[in-house]
Amino acid sequence: MVATTDLLVEGRHFRRDWSGPADVGVKAAAQNLADVAAMGAHSRTLLVGIGCPADLPAQWVLDMIDGMVTECGRAGASIAGGDVTAADSVMLAITALGELDGLRPVTRAGARPGDMVAVNGRLGWSAAGLALLRTARADGPDPQIAALVTAHRRPQPPYTAGPAAARAGATAMIDVSDGLLADVGHIASASGVAIDLETASLQVDAALAAGARLLNADAMDWVLTGGEDHALVATFPAETTPPAGWQVIGAVRPGSGVTIDGSVRSGPAGWDHFR
Amino acid sequence: MVATTDLLVEGRHFRRDWSGPADVGVKAAAQNLADVAAMGAHSRTLLVGIGCPADLPAQWVLDMIDGMVTECGRAGASIAGGDVTAADSVMLAITALGELDGLRPVTRAGARPGDMVAVNGRLGWSAAGLALLRTARADGPDPQIAALVTAHRRPQPPYTAGPAAARAGATAMIDVSDGLLADVGHIASASGVAIDLETASLQVDAALAAGARLLNADAMDWVLTGGEDHALVATFPAETTPPAGWQVIGAVRPGSGVTIDGSVRSGPAGWDHFR
Repeated sequence: MVATTDLLVEGRHFRRDWSGPADVGVKAAAQNLADVAAMGAHSRTLLVGIGCPADLPAQWVLDMIDGMVTECGRAGASIAGGDVTAADSVMLAITALGELDGLRPVTRAGARPGDMVAVNGRLGWSAAGLALLRTARADGPDPQIAALVTAHRRPQPPYTAGPAAARAGATAMIDVSDGLLADVGHIASASGVAIDLETASLQVDAALAAGARLLNADAMDWVLTGGEDHALVATFPAETTPPAGWQVIGAVRPGSGVTIDGSVRSGPAGWDHFR
Repeated sequence: MVATTDLLVEGRHFRRDWSGPADVGVKAAAQNLADVAAMGAHSRTLLVGIGCPADLPAQWVLDMIDGMVTECGRAGASIAGGDVTAADSVMLAITALGELDGLRPVTRAGARPGDMVAVNGRLGWSAAGLALLRTARADGPDPQIAALVTAHRRPQPPYTAGPAAARAGATAMIDVSDGLLADVGHIASASGVAIDLETASLQVDAALAAGARLLNADAMDWVLTGGEDHALVATFPAETTPPAGWQVIGAVRPGSGVTIDGSVRSGPAGWDHFR
């Protein structure tokens, strides 16, 4: 079995004015279910600890749990139980338990020089949606803008891609929760290797481009440093073919650190929990 | 496997002025390890989520983890990993994973009329220690008083008694976290039975008596309603002999609710999380 746990705090990981209760439930479940997928496992069940003020409407909690159940359904998991306590603000403690079905767990530490780096899932959409919410540009008729905001509220990780990558021989894997550069950096440091990404293979799709136009922002910045979409990034031996849905975006080299088109990028790589 | 999770919030589940960091770690681990024991399993590992203000000294967290590791050692468990996030106050989210070694899990729902009710571990000590801390009577030369305060800060659940009870045929089991009456009541309602406790078999030991004298309190009240010692309470078929260390304190009857010497006790039965 594999197990993962996350602690989510209102005002820091979610805002009740920016996300409905079901959105919060979907997102809290998704980030843990994605962690299980990133080890090559499929999720079996969640444990859910809820801390909340005594005056929080019970319906908020029920709707939040409905969101969790919905997202668990996408991943083939259930909610087994949990804990409830009073607290000054809403907080969620999620533990996901998954099964490997005989496969070895894929960690961050197995990447080897010569491996390909590949991604499965969206990059930058959640960050774009957050930027739209922060600047009060989230509402409007443009379906591409609405899709970015929905991606922030309800990430949709590619759960089955994790076990598929494990079966295809992935040497290391992680889900993009802090940002592509930061999370690829976690693989690089845990594996003792360098990773070079190619911007030519990192797409800025139409929705991201629309969001960037509206906010006069750099869409590639969202792709490289935006977290919380929970795409999966894995390394595969050069002689293998990544499974369907995986797109090669770079290569593993001897050395350390992460480069883009051979150069070190300036600026923060992603989310710092105490910044 | 069995799994259990708890969410602990500073100011509600612990106070940093009443308990040192290692005490907090011991207690947080103990309450989860006891939950695993109460299912008849032995704990394998903990996952630990930590939320804390950015200005919390790192040494406080390291000492807290040391306490957790110490208590895990008593139970034969380890800490596998966890999560760290910033939060306004200290909060801990603990998940314990345990193994049943081929036994069926003992739940709260299996007690049958005719069963004996038995306890293993201390009752009332943690409540007495808390009362001493609340009234600033915790410091002094009396070793019995000091023992009660230590019991509040560092409960010592009888971990191996859980699997031993399961092997001996326990039909239901729970750990006393909310108070004896409250937790026996959880067995009664989950099993659809009544439970009668005999005060003659519930001991007020010398330490509890000393604490009660000092505070002019009712020691039996602590025994019946004090939580957080994490003693184990189990029901056993009448024809069995409970294992060593288990003391019979009552019997299961047809009906519902909890009585003491045949009568319903007035007043609260134990801890209400939103009171």
